[in-house]
Amino acid sequence: MVQNKALVYKKLPSGTPVVGEHLAIEALDFDLSQPIPDGGLLVRGLYFSLDPYMRGRMRDPLTTSSYVPAFPLDKPMVAYGLVQVIKSANPKYAAGSIVFGIFEIAEYSVAAVPARFELPIGQTIDSKEFVAAAAAGGSKKVNGVELSYYLSVLGMTGLTAYSSLYEIGQPKKGETIFISSAAGAVGQIVGQIAKREGLRVIGSVGDDAKLAFIVNELGFDAGWNYKKGETPLEALKRLAPEGVDIYYDNVGGEQLDAALQTMNVGGRIVVCGMISQYNLPADQKYPIKTLGALVSKRVRMQGFLVNDPDFGPKYLKERNERISEWLAEGSIVCKEDVSYGIDSAPTAFVDMLAGKNFGKAVVKVADPE
Amino acid sequence: MVQNKALVYKKLPSGTPVVGEHLAIEALDFDLSQPIPDGGLLVRGLYFSLDPYMRGRMRDPLTTSSYVPAFPLDKPMVAYGLVQVIKSANPKYAAGSIVFGIFEIAEYSVAAVPARFELPIGQTIDSKEFVAAAAAGGSKKVNGVELSYYLSVLGMTGLTAYSSLYEIGQPKKGETIFISSAAGAVGQIVGQIAKREGLRVIGSVGDDAKLAFIVNELGFDAGWNYKKGETPLEALKRLAPEGVDIYYDNVGGEQLDAALQTMNVGGRIVVCGMISQYNLPADQKYPIKTLGALVSKRVRMQGFLVNDPDFGPKYLKERNERISEWLAEGSIVCKEDVSYGIDSAPTAFVDMLAGKNFGKAVVKVADPE
Repeated sequence: MVQNKALVYKKLPSGTPVVGEHLAIEALDFDLSQPIPDGGLLVRGLYFSLDPYMRGRMRDPLTTSSYVPAFPLDKPMVAYGLVQVIKSANPKYAAGSIVFGIFEIAEYSVAAVPARFELPIGQTIDSKEFVAAAAAGGSKKVNGVELSYYLSVLGMTGLTAYSSLYEIGQPKKGETIFISSAAGAVGQIVGQIAKREGLRVIGSVGDDAKLAFIVNELGFDAGWNYKKGETPLEALKRLAPEGVDIYYDNVGGEQLDAALQTMNVGGRIVVCGMISQYNLPADQKYPIKTLGALVSKRVRMQGFLVNDPDFGPKYLKERNERISEWLAEGSIVCKEDVSYGIDSAPTAFVDMLAGKNFGKAVVKVADPE
Repeated sequence: MVQNKALVYKKLPSGTPVVGEHLAIEALDFDLSQPIPDGGLLVRGLYFSLDPYMRGRMRDPLTTSSYVPAFPLDKPMVAYGLVQVIKSANPKYAAGSIVFGIFEIAEYSVAAVPARFELPIGQTIDSKEFVAAAAAGGSKKVNGVELSYYLSVLGMTGLTAYSSLYEIGQPKKGETIFISSAAGAVGQIVGQIAKREGLRVIGSVGDDAKLAFIVNELGFDAGWNYKKGETPLEALKRLAPEGVDIYYDNVGGEQLDAALQTMNVGGRIVVCGMISQYNLPADQKYPIKTLGALVSKRVRMQGFLVNDPDFGPKYLKERNERISEWLAEGSIVCKEDVSYGIDSAPTAFVDMLAGKNFGKAVVKVADPE
């Protein structure tokens, strides 16, 4: 028996989740020698990805349907994660290897494949190189990159950015793209790809350090801090006087409203998320009155699920090749906001929902052994 | 000189246009022997199409941009029409022939091709058959159909319905489609095509006669009269308990809101129009708070312009062939609401905006001679 700490979903939040009330770290006994179901794995948690869509799983399973099932109460929350196999009942995953998938946010867990891999991305990592390098006292990297990158630019987040920008955004040289939450996990990747495609790139962020980051480090053409008093409509009229061709929406609400009012004819709105609205009760959500733009500007506005077989997976190989190349040559920045230790997970999650993270939110629980 | 009555745009409306104030019939002298610019036509107005998008042209040209230019004040309003050429300065259009295009809503006008044909559909009609039949005392039809059908099911309206249902709606057998303004010019065609494709078809209408029409004559599976107290959300939950796969939106507002709440995963919203919102000032438009469905149900929502080269024209040949065949075998209904005489045009237009028309709104000004 070992002690196993996990991030447990405790109570349905009506608004912003509160640490200790709606989610909390709980320690449970864990039997490392327990039997594993056929096809399953007993794993050690290494890194976990904290993403806005997870807020949508903290809901009443009876009243709201969505693309991912609701989290069950009093169970560990699950997330995209990198784990190391301790004991395997699945010939595809040897003990010691590092696996990418959906796992409990915990120090240890048993994953019943394929039930746990309910949103498989088709990506696993051979840990041999990593373990060998670490054993030799070298850099703890896999394929030359930080292991955590497999949760960000080389993981679901990066594939989300890559596939949706091309599939829905259809960027064309000379166009203007506006990206909300531009320093965030997805926004920073979208913006850098859009720059490579020759677009004028404008971003909104929630503090001045992020503004400096997107302009100075990511090469955005312009941006603004939406907490500084200027309305999104004022900012877009100032920074995109020729109008917006693509709006990459991570936040919804007032910024979506402003984007709708500044879209050019034939514009596209990639609806990746609406994080400003997730914690609001239905009647308090921002009222959008400008959808007439869809008619007058013949705009396409589309949500997506990166794991749809005809969405993200279509771009997986191309994403892996191109982004690996950009990482190797140092021409793409991947900023992560790593919190350390399982105990940091609840606060890191709530902070991520509030936009306090600076870069992709990741929790590091352990190094592989 | 002859007297020429035309429908003139008089004043920018802030809400619902009022006959006599914002638009009116005016009589002007017209010189039938006037010189015509090269490529132009002097024409007699026969039929004109009254469509919701025209409300969008009654706007301040300086403050709002759109896909069609604003109507200039104190000039005749223009619309899709069928005209007969009286005098031609264009070798493509002989005197006597009937031409489809954008023309002034007037008894007579001079059209400076191509300026007048700013939204060409690429469709003209050889009037020989028509004129010969009429001269012989036969039925006044062209190619076996009513001439006015070239403004409805065989015109822009029919192409709008056909191309957008297939291009954006992507109907699949067994799916459920909800069509607002279902007895209207576009809705009636969309519904009948959807039935042929094996969908469950549900429509909303504004009176009981229209409800009987869509269910009994068009073969819709179900419908409701939205003026009878049941909310759109209640009606959709009752009539589409399995959810809506395609929402064909002609009205916007509360019905769009309800559709967003009942969309199935992967649903499509064809944004053809939002007539319930056109006459409202910006701050009084219906507040949509349910766009989160675009994320959670990964819905595609798209406006369009039928005349975009890669939209309607792609479907023109197929539409012409299939709908002509259905008309010939009597398997498609095309209900028109024809008002007679140029004097009827202003009221017919305002009534159409209020949903008082029952079928495609058309003004008949004259028979060809």
